[in-house]
Amino acid sequence: MNSQIQMAAHPDGWVKPGDFKLVEAPMPKPGDGEVLIRVLYLSLDPYMRGVMNPGKSYITAAAPGSVMPGGTVGEVVESHNPKFPVGVHVVGNQGWQSYAVSNGKGLHIVDAKQAPLPLYLSVLGMPGVTAHIGLLELGRPSPGETVVVSAAAGAVGAVVGQIARIKDCRAVGIAGGAEKCAYAVNELGFDACIDYKAGDLYAQLREAAPGGVDVYFENVGGQMLDTVLRRINRGARIPLCGMISQYNLTESYGVKNLSSLLVNRAEMKGFIVSDYLDRWPAAIVELAGWLKAGKLKHREDVAVGLANAPAAFIGMLEGKNFGKQLVKVA
Amino acid sequence: MNSQIQMAAHPDGWVKPGDFKLVEAPMPKPGDGEVLIRVLYLSLDPYMRGVMNPGKSYITAAAPGSVMPGGTVGEVVESHNPKFPVGVHVVGNQGWQSYAVSNGKGLHIVDAKQAPLPLYLSVLGMPGVTAHIGLLELGRPSPGETVVVSAAAGAVGAVVGQIARIKDCRAVGIAGGAEKCAYAVNELGFDACIDYKAGDLYAQLREAAPGGVDVYFENVGGQMLDTVLRRINRGARIPLCGMISQYNLTESYGVKNLSSLLVNRAEMKGFIVSDYLDRWPAAIVELAGWLKAGKLKHREDVAVGLANAPAAFIGMLEGKNFGKQLVKVA
Repeated sequence: MNSQIQMAAHPDGWVKPGDFKLVEAPMPKPGDGEVLIRVLYLSLDPYMRGVMNPGKSYITAAAPGSVMPGGTVGEVVESHNPKFPVGVHVVGNQGWQSYAVSNGKGLHIVDAKQAPLPLYLSVLGMPGVTAHIGLLELGRPSPGETVVVSAAAGAVGAVVGQIARIKDCRAVGIAGGAEKCAYAVNELGFDACIDYKAGDLYAQLREAAPGGVDVYFENVGGQMLDTVLRRINRGARIPLCGMISQYNLTESYGVKNLSSLLVNRAEMKGFIVSDYLDRWPAAIVELAGWLKAGKLKHREDVAVGLANAPAAFIGMLEGKNFGKQLVKVA
Repeated sequence: MNSQIQMAAHPDGWVKPGDFKLVEAPMPKPGDGEVLIRVLYLSLDPYMRGVMNPGKSYITAAAPGSVMPGGTVGEVVESHNPKFPVGVHVVGNQGWQSYAVSNGKGLHIVDAKQAPLPLYLSVLGMPGVTAHIGLLELGRPSPGETVVVSAAAGAVGAVVGQIARIKDCRAVGIAGGAEKCAYAVNELGFDACIDYKAGDLYAQLREAAPGGVDVYFENVGGQMLDTVLRRINRGARIPLCGMISQYNLTESYGVKNLSSLLVNRAEMKGFIVSDYLDRWPAAIVELAGWLKAGKLKHREDVAVGLANAPAAFIGMLEGKNFGKQLVKVA
């Protein structure tokens, strides 16, 4: 049988365990040109909250009763496609399930000897590429500038801060809790990290970024964005990667300080990394080089067993994970 | 004597007549290399509200007791500078006063035979150039796209809509009142105009821009921005030129729909036309060509007498003007 986690219903506000259901489905059979993949690791990412909403998002909305989508790394266990022989490891979007059939579209072979498989879902995968393209193409940091990133201990934020340091910028993180902040500074090499749970965010930001903010890589939105807007410099760039603080709200936070964009001739731009597929290979090559050179630290938070995916996902939306959230499926 | 209007005090919320005072100052005397200018027309512009606030803005804050700054067209009546002989007309920033001395910096000679003098403060001046650069450089409209502009009957908005039509875009204005909307459609050639005083802005926008919004040239901010954000298309551009709805508020409106920037990979960018001084000459040449070809209609709203400038300014912030607001000083 094939274990699957389906979306039971569109969530109303905060996601609840009951919005998911674990289903035992028949084992899928690969046809001509297709392969059967055994999923080894599933990636849990904030964007999935958007997928669960009905209506327009940047990804197709999931329908109740459908398997939750998601990035995976797996092993080809049956093949009718010569490009993907039995035994190879592949990254793809096989979703929250134990097995999946694919015609090869969107599959990429990865080498377990080059890097541990989970890394193809973190620093060498979508989160790493998101950080790379968002910071370097949209943020365009110059040496000496100050880069601030929210969710700094998360899968994307951790890479953003480290690339900022590689590019000789001042890297300032914002994270929830002293432990995550200590990790950002002591392990990842951020110049400073602000604990948003420790009170006056503006005062902390003024101290951590005394010269103002040139690039704000935004993963969180809401009040955090509103506060950072008060400290941006002339010509600041704000790549808008996510707004995790807003995903579970039924009414969004109202951002009051947009006039700062005007006064400072600043730019805020939303982006989705899947729009930049042509840049992925070069970004991954550069990330792998930094990884090999010891310039890119990483941490994974691995839940074990597909049945635990909903709880891990909800925990991630609450900021409980520490590092890239994965599920070990097999 | 030289009549001047000074800022009496920083306004608290809405500007009041008492925030200004009319003062008779001694006639200034031009020294070596300087000229004496008799001001003929004064331009009143929304950005001046920002100048009246203490603290950081994109222009130096005015101090209580100082002459209100502002763009002017005047006549050189005494000259000790061979570049600006007696009798020439000059555009500059002589402020809210009858006479001013200048060393020539920031002065430009204009030709009253080429165009009526007030136009050098409207379509052939700062507002026209603002529309040109903001729409074409930041908005980057393509033929067939929908361009929406707020304050559509104002000095900048009117030019934005007309350039959008010249570029084969669908031009949709937002203005206050049926009369301004009729002017935008019937005189200026907008494809549609939404009267924000006539109720449900979103429903009107859906009807006027059925294909969504590709470029939103923003002069107003606040709730209007929040509403248009709900209708932007993928890859939309939002040049942020002004936020007149917010200038007199003590607490800003909270914009809730910023996640639309993310979902639609859209870009919002603040700009100040004085950052683009090198592009002014080419923009003015193009605007003058369209004016001569009858493709650029314009309207001026002229208050007579410097003493009436404060009332005209307050009226403009309330949207009472119809066309570019000027003061005939002499």
